[in-house]
Amino acid sequence: VTTTTRALTVTEAASRRRSIWAYAPDLVPRADIEAILAVTALAPSAFNLQPWRFVIVQDARLKQALAEAAHGQRQILGAPAVIVLYTDMRDALANADAIVHPSLPEDRRAGALRSIERFFAGKGDDEREDWGAQQGYIALGYLLLAAAEHGYQTSPMLGFDADRVKAALDLPSHVPVAALVSIGRGVEDGRPHHRLPLERLARFV
Amino acid sequence: VTTTTRALTVTEAASRRRSIWAYAPDLVPRADIEAILAVTALAPSAFNLQPWRFVIVQDARLKQALAEAAHGQRQILGAPAVIVLYTDMRDALANADAIVHPSLPEDRRAGALRSIERFFAGKGDDEREDWGAQQGYIALGYLLLAAAEHGYQTSPMLGFDADRVKAALDLPSHVPVAALVSIGRGVEDGRPHHRLPLERLARFV
Repeated sequence: VTTTTRALTVTEAASRRRSIWAYAPDLVPRADIEAILAVTALAPSAFNLQPWRFVIVQDARLKQALAEAAHGQRQILGAPAVIVLYTDMRDALANADAIVHPSLPEDRRAGALRSIERFFAGKGDDEREDWGAQQGYIALGYLLLAAAEHGYQTSPMLGFDADRVKAALDLPSHVPVAALVSIGRGVEDGRPHHRLPLERLARFV
Repeated sequence: VTTTTRALTVTEAASRRRSIWAYAPDLVPRADIEAILAVTALAPSAFNLQPWRFVIVQDARLKQALAEAAHGQRQILGAPAVIVLYTDMRDALANADAIVHPSLPEDRRAGALRSIERFFAGKGDDEREDWGAQQGYIALGYLLLAAAEHGYQTSPMLGFDADRVKAALDLPSHVPVAALVSIGRGVEDGRPHHRLPLERLARFV
């Protein structure tokens, strides 16, 4: 495993990122987690609602509970920290006033808030949370690249019992949990990328 | 608007990215789009299914159709190219064999395919496509950062009539359209980021 002190370019971060399941026991300094989340929080969201929320789990007992909620995936107990990424549209919409851009004059500010209200008016609670969950994955893309840039390895997990995760972390029952992300200094190289060829994915018209 | 020839770090790309609605008319070279999509395609997905697909629209008549499907958002007609990001779980699952990692021995290969089958067995077509749509947003996060790294500006749009987008581009009716992303050389600076403070988003336990 090679690490670097130079910040990685986007291409380097995407190329070097691997799903890593084995980690050195060293704690991840809080300042590093905060730097990674500060980049993550720059991800765009529709209406700038930023519905993503993060719980950074380092407590051994809580990690044990997460591991049990995630079918015992060993990267949870093996990693010094696990970032739980969830989304909360109820919270985001209740505080929509805080996300409207401060450069907007008063009338456009009111218009922006009305647009949000109109967009979600016909949608029930579940539909709103499903919508927010999608936005959460934009932040996940950012988070994985930001962690790689800072010399950390990760493993994003999407398969777990969300109710048990929420119970362990005292999260409200209405929030979707997008991912658990183990993070630390990897002690294995991980598998090389295996991806479909671009011709299979892209069409120019 | 400043551009750079040096590839940007993840933090630089996230910091400089803005939603940009006005572009120079210069076409985006196909090689640049392919370089950006090659990075995007390195995004991780559950089971490595890579359900994301891309249509790169440069044809004026098709851009007009997209603009009409997207409530006339001016960044579509103003941008030299629009990348339509959609997901296709039917296609991904029908070709699951291609995504299993080649390093796996035969028995683990069969096990990986059975895991996929088991996970989706209880899910109907719509649920599968909704699941795939979420994965698409991981790729969107990557795409926006990769475009910024390559000196391009973008505007991701999530509000449009998906049926009209699919009709214009001859996409199958079952696929969710995750986003339209205008891309080009921006001729405006865009608004500075306005984000919730990290204390509002993150909790350490």
